[in-house]
Amino acid sequence: MNQQKIIELINQKKYVEIKKELSDMNEVDVAEILDPLDPNTTLLIFRMLPKDLAVDVFSNFSIDQQREIINAITDKELTHILDEIFFDDMIDMIEEMPANIVNKILKNSTQDQRILINQFLKYPIDSAGSIMTIEYVELRQKMTVKEALQHIKETGLNKETVYTCYVTNQNRILEGIVSLRTLVIADEDESIYDLMERDLIYVNTHDDQETVAAIFKKYGFIALPVVDKEHRLTGIITVDDIIDVMEQEATEDFQKMAAMAPSEEAYLDTSVFSLAKHRITWLLILMVGAALTGGIITRFEYVLSSMTILTAFIPMLMDTGGNSGSQSSTLIIRGLATGEVTLKDKWKVLWKEFRISVLVGLCLGLANFLKNMYIDKVGIEVAITVSITLMATVMMAKMIGGVLPLIAKKLKLDPAIMAGPLITTIVDSLALVLYFTIASLFLHI
Amino acid sequence: MNQQKIIELINQKKYVEIKKELSDMNEVDVAEILDPLDPNTTLLIFRMLPKDLAVDVFSNFSIDQQREIINAITDKELTHILDEIFFDDMIDMIEEMPANIVNKILKNSTQDQRILINQFLKYPIDSAGSIMTIEYVELRQKMTVKEALQHIKETGLNKETVYTCYVTNQNRILEGIVSLRTLVIADEDESIYDLMERDLIYVNTHDDQETVAAIFKKYGFIALPVVDKEHRLTGIITVDDIIDVMEQEATEDFQKMAAMAPSEEAYLDTSVFSLAKHRITWLLILMVGAALTGGIITRFEYVLSSMTILTAFIPMLMDTGGNSGSQSSTLIIRGLATGEVTLKDKWKVLWKEFRISVLVGLCLGLANFLKNMYIDKVGIEVAITVSITLMATVMMAKMIGGVLPLIAKKLKLDPAIMAGPLITTIVDSLALVLYFTIASLFLHI
Repeated sequence: MNQQKIIELINQKKYVEIKKELSDMNEVDVAEILDPLDPNTTLLIFRMLPKDLAVDVFSNFSIDQQREIINAITDKELTHILDEIFFDDMIDMIEEMPANIVNKILKNSTQDQRILINQFLKYPIDSAGSIMTIEYVELRQKMTVKEALQHIKETGLNKETVYTCYVTNQNRILEGIVSLRTLVIADEDESIYDLMERDLIYVNTHDDQETVAAIFKKYGFIALPVVDKEHRLTGIITVDDIIDVMEQEATEDFQKMAAMAPSEEAYLDTSVFSLAKHRITWLLILMVGAALTGGIITRFEYVLSSMTILTAFIPMLMDTGGNSGSQSSTLIIRGLATGEVTLKDKWKVLWKEFRISVLVGLCLGLANFLKNMYIDKVGIEVAITVSITLMATVMMAKMIGGVLPLIAKKLKLDPAIMAGPLITTIVDSLALVLYFTIASLFLHI
Repeated sequence: MNQQKIIELINQKKYVEIKKELSDMNEVDVAEILDPLDPNTTLLIFRMLPKDLAVDVFSNFSIDQQREIINAITDKELTHILDEIFFDDMIDMIEEMPANIVNKILKNSTQDQRILINQFLKYPIDSAGSIMTIEYVELRQKMTVKEALQHIKETGLNKETVYTCYVTNQNRILEGIVSLRTLVIADEDESIYDLMERDLIYVNTHDDQETVAAIFKKYGFIALPVVDKEHRLTGIITVDDIIDVMEQEATEDFQKMAAMAPSEEAYLDTSVFSLAKHRITWLLILMVGAALTGGIITRFEYVLSSMTILTAFIPMLMDTGGNSGSQSSTLIIRGLATGEVTLKDKWKVLWKEFRISVLVGLCLGLANFLKNMYIDKVGIEVAITVSITLMATVMMAKMIGGVLPLIAKKLKLDPAIMAGPLITTIVDSLALVLYFTIASLFLHI
């Protein structure tokens, strides 16, 4: 049944049918249908859902809808949600809620839950600790496969994943990992001790989420254990959360590379004031940079006034320089972000960019020369001046675009700031200095 | 044991120890250690690995290393690899291999394998069919949980995933999905018919990989079934492959947004010639655009020559306009790519960008006015001319940056081409027209 039909049923208030249809659907789809309805209708239908589905649907609601629902439901209903919701979803929710809602949540939590919530809220933003959850399957070395499977059968419904199980000792120290695949394939009297993998790949609670994402990408895991300083298992991170992290990190890089302060909020949900604030700082910095370029023009005014046609080529030289440099810096920044390029490759990168810049510079210089001669019909001296400047600008821009992200990385700055806008500003100034110097030489000004 | 120690063992030719150490390690790490060694050493150690591990390690080797190994090993060894390697990895490999290696592979495949390989090579590039694999668990409705688990026990070792199982009929029509979690938790005499989910979420073989990635992101699945036109199950896609797709798609967007033809190849593995080729086309197109900007300068030459100080502000106006427009277009392009912004939101976007542009324009205009008056010490008429042009340019740039990606999307073009470089070129021309018009008015030229 498609969404349209269900919305029709809702408009016709055919609640028995609605309940039947929604009960068989994926929780993400149910949330998508209910989220935009008016709060009373959403609450009414939400309360009709089977209890387990209701909690899953709740996790997929927008923050605004979650707030409406927590406000409206009874303490008993809230306690049920808090008992069943995955811990990472609860933490995400608490971080976004106003104080009165957080109070209602804490009032309906157990003492143990409150202690854990406090502990989780303290993990640094974007750390492994801040995205992990606590619903994992814990096994012991001395268990048999049969006992392990029985344990999963009894507890597995409430785990974020049961496909990777974690073997710990009585001090919660992580000793091994065993997949459900291994358990299902093994004979039932084999012991976990014999089956578990000891070559552990894990992260620490304070590791950055980008590091975590890189490990998922490298190994293709569906879950990863998170340990604290004492090597005690404190949580797990599942691959679905990492997909969100990857998307968020890419978005932040896009923002930084377009000279904006990064923001985790969705565009349509961010206020005009906040969006403007994120953009103004860099624009001001780059304006100052561009003023230097203007200063160069002022200083070489005499060149332009003795040969006014030269002014007409300034935009082309500046733009092409900026674009050439941005191309190189974008590839290097992205390569550094995906791990495809590392600082070790710096000479390889520079040598490559140098050869590319020669090729690209020659092509563009030649194209420009022909255009200058046969379309613009300027004198050959001017055509040579502009074309040589163009070649030199492209080469310089590509080298700068290639090297600055590497320098940023070396200095432990974010390479993403060395992108188009900053490169353009730097290259603009240098391109004009080149232009006026070459013009002075060739045109004897 | 860390990589350094294993490389020492390799240098000391302590093969017994090496074998022991490598056998306990993750296949990705083993491949990472062996890949850079000289081909003879790699082959020697590769042959010592336990057979199952060897195949997994082989899948993680670089294409060059895979080619070396296929070249060197016997037909019998190759047949073992081809029998055990996951089908999607085999297809990826065949696509990259030279003809003689492909022939050796086909010669050592069974008739059935060859038919399947042929079929898979025909799926469009970047389609669901081209990234799916065929090693899935197939169940029947009439099976009991016990029978299903027994089936998984017998066949599960060679499946890409056993955590999602697919229920089909005798015609391979997909009828339902059941997770291993459900099977492990259920009683052993329950029937698959009663347990399976019927609300199927699947893709078609010809769907684009971006569509597939969006579904994984939305639902948080670890695997997704792929069906053909007749709704027959033809393969599955697992989340680890989707992580690669997401990264590749983001990289392509970065490339397009920096005015390059997108490429799937890694930067360091791509030839200088190919990299240059990917960059030149757009640079040439944008050069022509920038020439128009130059034409505007020529047309308004008289304004500049009657007030030469105006030339000095051209770079600042052009750059700030370009940067302002890029900021807006980047956010909208990324929003469209992640699905956060849709065409339905066009008026919301434009109204938002308009208000932002007023705020940002006012701030920058004011900052520039103060700088003009107290640092540059130009006359108040010039300061007003430049500041008003700046404000108008920022507003125009942001509106253009906001609207062009939406228009591209509406015209079914890729919004990513409407990014910084193109926006800059367009905004440059308009900014100069604004500048000269406003100058003519305020300075009575």
